[in-house]
Amino acid sequence: MGVGDPESLTYEAGRALAGADVLFTVDKGATKADLNALRGEICARYARPGLRLVELVEPERDRAPADYAAEVRRWHAARADVWARALLAELADGDRGAFLVWGDPALYDSSLRILDDVRSRGLVDVDVTVIPGISSVQALAARHRIALNSIGGAVHLTTGRRLTAEVAGQDSIVVLLDGAAAWRDIPDADRWDIYWGAYLGGPDEIAIAGPLAEVGEEIVAVKQAARARKGWIMDVYLLRRRP
Amino acid sequence: MGVGDPESLTYEAGRALAGADVLFTVDKGATKADLNALRGEICARYARPGLRLVELVEPERDRAPADYAAEVRRWHAARADVWARALLAELADGDRGAFLVWGDPALYDSSLRILDDVRSRGLVDVDVTVIPGISSVQALAARHRIALNSIGGAVHLTTGRRLTAEVAGQDSIVVLLDGAAAWRDIPDADRWDIYWGAYLGGPDEIAIAGPLAEVGEEIVAVKQAARARKGWIMDVYLLRRRP
Repeated sequence: MGVGDPESLTYEAGRALAGADVLFTVDKGATKADLNALRGEICARYARPGLRLVELVEPERDRAPADYAAEVRRWHAARADVWARALLAELADGDRGAFLVWGDPALYDSSLRILDDVRSRGLVDVDVTVIPGISSVQALAARHRIALNSIGGAVHLTTGRRLTAEVAGQDSIVVLLDGAAAWRDIPDADRWDIYWGAYLGGPDEIAIAGPLAEVGEEIVAVKQAARARKGWIMDVYLLRRRP
Repeated sequence: MGVGDPESLTYEAGRALAGADVLFTVDKGATKADLNALRGEICARYARPGLRLVELVEPERDRAPADYAAEVRRWHAARADVWARALLAELADGDRGAFLVWGDPALYDSSLRILDDVRSRGLVDVDVTVIPGISSVQALAARHRIALNSIGGAVHLTTGRRLTAEVAGQDSIVVLLDGAAAWRDIPDADRWDIYWGAYLGGPDEIAIAGPLAEVGEEIVAVKQAARARKGWIMDVYLLRRRP
């Protein structure tokens, strides 16, 4: 579903949604109301009238596990059971079910892993087609009118929790899933520029860029205020080593 | 312009193309005929009839320079001069010029750098809006129905020439701009899976995946044969460390 604006979908995605018999929804938490509204707009524009929505109730998840990867795997398996039951109950033979993934399913989204699990455990015999979407990373670069890579350089995509351990040797780092402000913890702040964005592609979009040492604390304040105002925040940023 | 299929454009991109007064084209080399054909299809579908095309003639480039980054900068400056002259000559005040970038302008594309140069040197007073597009990296993940990241892990995007120097410590590496077969040079081939694709999103799409030690040489042969047949190849791949 791209970044939020129905215009950010591809024609291929719009057409696939128009051909769907059921739309499975998996929202939860603080983003639920906003994502519901967004999905309503997208469906109003592309889906057949009266498209059936089926909400998948998410199993509980341990947010502070001793073994992060193991807990994610356990949780994915529990989700696969829920998804498999829903696919069997709601889709007749030959029907098409759709999932609208925020951004692109290739980046930090579990939908494909869960469907893999559904298929590999033989829970449901289902064909899967993936249609790429514009990710927040691309919206960030577009908003700031920059390339993510330096000339001939690499681009390292990582999470807030891994940033400080992985900063060495990189010159272009994209950080996702940063619940706090991991940019505060990298050494030599005066050697970096930051290109930050939140709610990218939507009406509440915010974007700030500049030398990290100058705008880093401003972004902390803006992020805290935005989260307080809206109840949730999704942000992403590029750290670029200064020439 | 996304990955080639006109369906891979976003509605936003289609609408922007419909509003363009001039389309600037910058093709060169072996891909030119195929990109021209593709652009023709995209324009036939989205642009206003009779959209004016202006071809920008590229300055010469040293493909084996002593200082790679310096040569790229020199070449970009020469391109900026060409682009600036064309913008001034072809656009009246208030007109909209369009550039169709293959994939997404945020990844390994120089258009934004050149336009930055045009603006920062004061050559032309022009506003730039960037509309993201589906990149080959996303088409690769979609074709193989995988996420690029392992659970909670990082994704390292790099070029063929940098791969062997950067493989240490990574578990998910996306390689672009590999004119040869850099996957042959990484140590411990039996510890990696490869997800490879060429001409992604087009009618000639090829995709191969499997343990690197088993399919690596098959991909070398397929790549050589495809390049010989078609005259050029654009491929991309993910290396994923095996669990």
